[in-house]
Amino acid sequence: MSEVAATIDRDLDRYREELFDFLRIPSISAQSEHDADTRRAAEWLVERMREAGLEAEVCETPRHPVVYGEWLGAGPDAPTVLVYGHYDVQPVEPLDEWESDPFEPVIRDGRIYARGTADDKGQLYLHVKAIEAHLKARGRLPVNVKVIAEGEEEIGSPNLVPFVEANRERLAADAVVISDSGLFAPGIPSILYSLRGLAYFELHVQGPDADLHSGVYGGPVVNPANALARIVASLHDERGRIAIEGFYDDVVEWDEETRAEIRGLPFDEEGFMREIGVTALGGEEGYSTLEKRWSRPTCDVNGMLSGYTGEGAKTVLPARATAKVSFRLVPDQDPARVGELFRAHVERVTPPGVRVRVDELHGGRPWRARLDARLEQAARRALERAFGRPPVLVGEGGSIPIVGEFERVLEAPALLIGFSYPGCNLHAPNEWFAVEAFELGIRTIATLYDELGG
Amino acid sequence: MSEVAATIDRDLDRYREELFDFLRIPSISAQSEHDADTRRAAEWLVERMREAGLEAEVCETPRHPVVYGEWLGAGPDAPTVLVYGHYDVQPVEPLDEWESDPFEPVIRDGRIYARGTADDKGQLYLHVKAIEAHLKARGRLPVNVKVIAEGEEEIGSPNLVPFVEANRERLAADAVVISDSGLFAPGIPSILYSLRGLAYFELHVQGPDADLHSGVYGGPVVNPANALARIVASLHDERGRIAIEGFYDDVVEWDEETRAEIRGLPFDEEGFMREIGVTALGGEEGYSTLEKRWSRPTCDVNGMLSGYTGEGAKTVLPARATAKVSFRLVPDQDPARVGELFRAHVERVTPPGVRVRVDELHGGRPWRARLDARLEQAARRALERAFGRPPVLVGEGGSIPIVGEFERVLEAPALLIGFSYPGCNLHAPNEWFAVEAFELGIRTIATLYDELGG
Repeated sequence: MSEVAATIDRDLDRYREELFDFLRIPSISAQSEHDADTRRAAEWLVERMREAGLEAEVCETPRHPVVYGEWLGAGPDAPTVLVYGHYDVQPVEPLDEWESDPFEPVIRDGRIYARGTADDKGQLYLHVKAIEAHLKARGRLPVNVKVIAEGEEEIGSPNLVPFVEANRERLAADAVVISDSGLFAPGIPSILYSLRGLAYFELHVQGPDADLHSGVYGGPVVNPANALARIVASLHDERGRIAIEGFYDDVVEWDEETRAEIRGLPFDEEGFMREIGVTALGGEEGYSTLEKRWSRPTCDVNGMLSGYTGEGAKTVLPARATAKVSFRLVPDQDPARVGELFRAHVERVTPPGVRVRVDELHGGRPWRARLDARLEQAARRALERAFGRPPVLVGEGGSIPIVGEFERVLEAPALLIGFSYPGCNLHAPNEWFAVEAFELGIRTIATLYDELGG
Repeated sequence: MSEVAATIDRDLDRYREELFDFLRIPSISAQSEHDADTRRAAEWLVERMREAGLEAEVCETPRHPVVYGEWLGAGPDAPTVLVYGHYDVQPVEPLDEWESDPFEPVIRDGRIYARGTADDKGQLYLHVKAIEAHLKARGRLPVNVKVIAEGEEEIGSPNLVPFVEANRERLAADAVVISDSGLFAPGIPSILYSLRGLAYFELHVQGPDADLHSGVYGGPVVNPANALARIVASLHDERGRIAIEGFYDDVVEWDEETRAEIRGLPFDEEGFMREIGVTALGGEEGYSTLEKRWSRPTCDVNGMLSGYTGEGAKTVLPARATAKVSFRLVPDQDPARVGELFRAHVERVTPPGVRVRVDELHGGRPWRARLDARLEQAARRALERAFGRPPVLVGEGGSIPIVGEFERVLEAPALLIGFSYPGCNLHAPNEWFAVEAFELGIRTIATLYDELGG
């Protein structure tokens, strides 16, 4: 490894300069006025991948292109790693909250500030540089590598799964490695091993045909807003558990070892409360805060609307009330099944005098890492070597739908190792990525290839 | 009575023509572009009151004038009646839903269509004509009469109570007679003997400082929308009763005789449900629909807002949730006391992790008729003579705050006998007042004076 490490040491300043060039391209996939920039980012990336030694090309899709590159010189008996990342970035509004130009990267206090630096250009580019370092230092890699970078992650990846399905054989790999997540804390290497799924509904409660005078009609007329409140309140029991019959049937409880590992993480609960501005936490009894965020299902109202919501008093008995209600799911819950249980519950608890309708708006499956022992051990050793301490397992309360899709289509396990720090302003003004994380990321990935190919 | 009745018979067409002139004046008190019209209506009314034989004048207030007239020729030993009504009207929007010009009265199917015809010009003017008929037929009335008509009822009567307080002695009376309500059904004379009060609040539930990602934070963070739903749901028990401790302490249960009378009314429950578009009713167990509307307190959500309410799915954990919650009150409930009980309840049921604030937006006392036997008997006989059947007692779920104020300031009981029909489009397009109701109203009031003075 020493000649690869020495190459990285030598070239680090150049890597960072190149990353700055990448960050200067405003590849905002959601804004069509930036379509040319988004394409420019793809073309820039292909050039860098070729310089690194990959055979690379821009692949057209109905909208923003996919960038694909590969080096298959390790031969058919060596393992193959597919790296996934994205070169598109979030919009930058509100612009006046940025302390510096989002597309003119600057380093302040060891952090690279720019849009896309953590999500995901910096994390994608560190993979390209790890590959380059191997090829430059030794002329070869111990594994075959394939790199796929999309330009539509921030708009929901509409063309990625079709692309992967159409290129199943070309993309075939033994593992998919993704760096689009973060460390549990600076200096603590982390393997992301679970993502929650989602089942999102809109609940409509219809009372009378039209809004009524609450004085003239109030009493015998069932108020749809009050009824909605009762329905929503019925979704939890007194211990914070979801009170829908059968809801927990498919929830796989975590093994004691993993739970103990989560409980052992240096989580600052007071700091967490301060950060969001609350003085107490709630949720399901019997689980720690991190378990509640990572490994337990939830039911949250995302929005609620009924009647008169302007200033002052209007004595109206509303005709209807609506709530957006979503569930975060954990393995092996299925969004469709949760939808059936939710509907049945709502119908059971809805009082006579109002009608309900449940619309399904969005669904996504939960995910849990299914690393084989070899992949997991390789990742653990690579992270430990780079960081000087063994990695921790972390979960993520949100969803990254593409992870499950890669596993499904390519039948290969996904390894999620990301390097951004907590509080790095993903999707917000003043996004940043630590200079040291960029460097540690390159070293980790370079070592991972040795571990996997060894 | 015959000479008064004969005079009414003879002059009825003229009365109607005059009412049409009154209705042609667009005295919309809420719209300042109609301020001159509103004043014109006051001046027109003063002229007609003078022609009727009253000593009348326009009395200035900070905004729209009060019209006052009196005839005190019955002498200090005779009873004195104060008539209250209003000459201002509601706005007419949406104009395109009117089948004829709101300020060009027309008769269709025995109904006078125009803005203000039932609320309240037609009902105010029938009092003026009843007085006129007496003075014209006999040169005198059996009672002293005072008439006060305001031009601000539709904007909340901001200057009426100060005017009444400042003119307490001039307005002194043995009874206040008001016709600004309706019949239980066509042909069924009705005495309105109860109005519900109001206690209107805005409930704010604050969770985290800002909206959070429901995936990343959902679980340990108490969701203010879910918390609001639980608080609102806790306001009723399973039998539809309000579950706030002490809430019913001041509720005076109605006597069995009155309850029996209400239950005996020919109320078409199926028709009521059809009218509002529901297939079942709810509310407090053990009471009829009319009792629930007239004589029982309620708690209704008037509006509710939280989080994302636009199209589609947004995975947000809202920072706050708000509900407008109002109570209809019955004697002897007090809005301030209900506010205290509500606050205490909300504080008791609010979970840790969110903060609540209860703002008081509006309050009004409930009212129940306190007619002395003489006044009640006179009203019953007058209504029975005019309609050919004895009157029924009815309640009103809404509020007419000025009623209680007259009683308080003048220390005289209020008699509420109105003549509009159900479904007469008060405050809505195509407001109407039955021609026969206008006539029956004049005859009833003319007879009432004889009954009171006899």
